[in-house]
Amino acid sequence: MSAFRYQALEVLLRQQIQAGRYQVGEKLPSVRTLCQQHTLSKATVVHALHKLEADQLVYAVPKSGYFVAEGMSYTDLPRKVSTPSVPAPVNVPDIFRDIMSRSAAFDILPSDGSTPVSQHLITLNRMIAKSSRTHPEQKAYYYDEPKGYAGLRQAIVDLYRQRNTPMNAEDLCITSGCQHALFLALMASCQAGDTVAIESPAFYGVLQQLEQLGLNVIEIPSDSNTGLDIAELEAKIQHWPIKACIVTPNFHTPTGSKMPVANMKALLMLANQHDFYIIEDDIYGELGFQNGPCPAIKSECTQGRVILCGSFSKCLSRELRMGWIAGGRLHAKIVQLKLITQLASPQAIQQGLAAFIHQGHFKRHANQYRQQLKEQSDQLLTELKRGWGQAIKFSRPQGGLSCWVELPEHIDTQKSYPSLLEKGVVLTPGALFSAHGLYRNHMRLSFSQPLTEGRRSALQLLFHTLLKDEP
Amino acid sequence: MSAFRYQALEVLLRQQIQAGRYQVGEKLPSVRTLCQQHTLSKATVVHALHKLEADQLVYAVPKSGYFVAEGMSYTDLPRKVSTPSVPAPVNVPDIFRDIMSRSAAFDILPSDGSTPVSQHLITLNRMIAKSSRTHPEQKAYYYDEPKGYAGLRQAIVDLYRQRNTPMNAEDLCITSGCQHALFLALMASCQAGDTVAIESPAFYGVLQQLEQLGLNVIEIPSDSNTGLDIAELEAKIQHWPIKACIVTPNFHTPTGSKMPVANMKALLMLANQHDFYIIEDDIYGELGFQNGPCPAIKSECTQGRVILCGSFSKCLSRELRMGWIAGGRLHAKIVQLKLITQLASPQAIQQGLAAFIHQGHFKRHANQYRQQLKEQSDQLLTELKRGWGQAIKFSRPQGGLSCWVELPEHIDTQKSYPSLLEKGVVLTPGALFSAHGLYRNHMRLSFSQPLTEGRRSALQLLFHTLLKDEP
Repeated sequence: MSAFRYQALEVLLRQQIQAGRYQVGEKLPSVRTLCQQHTLSKATVVHALHKLEADQLVYAVPKSGYFVAEGMSYTDLPRKVSTPSVPAPVNVPDIFRDIMSRSAAFDILPSDGSTPVSQHLITLNRMIAKSSRTHPEQKAYYYDEPKGYAGLRQAIVDLYRQRNTPMNAEDLCITSGCQHALFLALMASCQAGDTVAIESPAFYGVLQQLEQLGLNVIEIPSDSNTGLDIAELEAKIQHWPIKACIVTPNFHTPTGSKMPVANMKALLMLANQHDFYIIEDDIYGELGFQNGPCPAIKSECTQGRVILCGSFSKCLSRELRMGWIAGGRLHAKIVQLKLITQLASPQAIQQGLAAFIHQGHFKRHANQYRQQLKEQSDQLLTELKRGWGQAIKFSRPQGGLSCWVELPEHIDTQKSYPSLLEKGVVLTPGALFSAHGLYRNHMRLSFSQPLTEGRRSALQLLFHTLLKDEP
Repeated sequence: MSAFRYQALEVLLRQQIQAGRYQVGEKLPSVRTLCQQHTLSKATVVHALHKLEADQLVYAVPKSGYFVAEGMSYTDLPRKVSTPSVPAPVNVPDIFRDIMSRSAAFDILPSDGSTPVSQHLITLNRMIAKSSRTHPEQKAYYYDEPKGYAGLRQAIVDLYRQRNTPMNAEDLCITSGCQHALFLALMASCQAGDTVAIESPAFYGVLQQLEQLGLNVIEIPSDSNTGLDIAELEAKIQHWPIKACIVTPNFHTPTGSKMPVANMKALLMLANQHDFYIIEDDIYGELGFQNGPCPAIKSECTQGRVILCGSFSKCLSRELRMGWIAGGRLHAKIVQLKLITQLASPQAIQQGLAAFIHQGHFKRHANQYRQQLKEQSDQLLTELKRGWGQAIKFSRPQGGLSCWVELPEHIDTQKSYPSLLEKGVVLTPGALFSAHGLYRNHMRLSFSQPLTEGRRSALQLLFHTLLKDEP
């Protein structure tokens, strides 16, 4: 057995695990498969796996194989931060609003040009244009039905079936993107003065909604790998009853974390015991780096407690402004709120999109885009490790568009925002992701765009600016 | 002078006035013009005008001409109804929600097929499809700016300039239709528990919003010709301070009334004195039967008190889901609320629409559609007069899509809704237009679609059903 051969495999698997290629609890390829893939002897493969096991990256299950360990032995993951234990209203500073609208593009260097256009997007445009030529007078003079086009709702149901999350077209309502869906979910489930639990760090778009609706917020620490800390949630709601918990189980922004199924079940049990709604933000649900089906919390819920919100903005096109909501026991109320806030959705876009999904284009696009994101994520993580691995900690996204970076404590990422913006570089400061001013030494980095030379330089400039006062 | 000749002119002018061809306060064509148009002698024309003057349909202004009288001597206009004097929350019964979503189409017989498609709509679709082929990757990966596409905002500014209502593109924000704009206006200007004044009858879509936002409502009687009764508003707000007044000055639904400029000014003075916002619903602003420019209340406001809301849904296409809001002093807050509720608008639709307006297609379409609506209105009013003139009173719309009908007091229009719906006929009951259960013996009729044989039969069936218990 050559030392070089087992080490090469060990390094490869280690990189793949740390880059999130295999998620926590997932089985690695079998010894036999690894032998075949790498033309190695069984002894060599087992030796490499034993090394990983010794480092606590994987654990063996007798007669089954090797699995990625829960507490992967990264030393460079952002730490869980303790959060205030008392609910408080949100107060979003004005400067954040500017940052938010720029950060929505998830691009550190918007001037650098975006991903080359995919053939699938061209096909989608053609199908929408075709729908708009069909019965244009009907579309011009009559509104769509309040729930949205039934064909599109059925197409979304089909996508969820592939994720082992069964539902019916009647359970869905089309919205103007996920932001609209989340707003409807909060309006339907809460009243001003109620308390809502959020992940910490949390998606900033929701913080503005919570502020506007006069809701109190309690932040629950979240793990960079497994998401919301269920035990912390349980401890906090003993003292502070909540009306709803907003959570992004599948590929949360900013961390890219994925909630294990066991945690989903535990969260649902808590919701049933303590009578609150789960508002599930599923906007990144199609963007897992693993190809297997990735169920939503909704799939485990039998009591209509989960309000599932999603959108095609992140997995297909931000231009569509097409999202959905499955409101569970609040669904009728939510459809009314959709009518009140938007009346109806454009019909041609819905019809074109439904045809695009039915004909399999969406699946092909998503598979390709997922692969691309995975590669871009690997590139970014490699770059971070290589360039600033000693100074920072960063999450290992299991899907989605972004990675969460912790910098040394004395650094305030927000302070560098204006000077970087002048140079065209969009920094997304960590403080955006907290209702209570946490994460000043954090930031979100995205791999939604290819790591071009321009973006590589922007990253250099970013870290140079942030770390220049490094003692 | 032949009696026949002057009578023919008198009847013609009378019909034109009663059908709303000339609006209150508007000058009739000069004596000289009438002589030329109808090849009549001056004496004949003057004689006809004197007859109209004697009937108080017109009044003479020395050295100027003949004008349509304020209190046109119709005996068959719906009466102004007195409203509760104490503000109260809105409670929209569940059955109304079904009626509202069907009535949004303004069509008594949706199965009858709609207006033939206009060439302008085909052009619009082509321009939108073209925009969607331009930089599709940019559109897919980056959101539109929060205020919406600047080119479309400028195009809307240009349309308002033609209506003597100047503003800047920066003053506007694109929304997902007028319903969305009105919702943003209410969220920005009011808090739960505040009181809002509305016209009575009022647009039902707003009533649902008021209910959802927990606002109290005070109904202000409105005249079928001149809209909101300013004196009544003034009297009521002495006792009940209001935060906002929602008003549709130009071609209100259901009445088709038009607020005279003098009343607009008086309303603005009240708003300044009593410190409230005017939420101006301008969705029908382009649909006046007169061709002259028709200013919005906003044109008279120097203090940023008017929140102007509009949309292309009624004057161009319901499919676009494109509206706008000019929030005056609340504009920054409103743009934030747009971001919170919808994030962004589709770019291709905005760009295609902007090009459509810039190239003059919109004006051509609007001119043609206005003329068509005017003819359809004349047809409907003639039909009403001829068929049921003895039993009913009805408004004389000066624009918009609908006419307001008062039936004998013992008739409850809502009661006939289900049985008519079974036959495919959509009745829009009067009670929909009140926060407090008024107008049970009223209904809205629309002339948004051609009065085909099918719709004529539907109208027959409608009145037969409603009036069958007539003593």
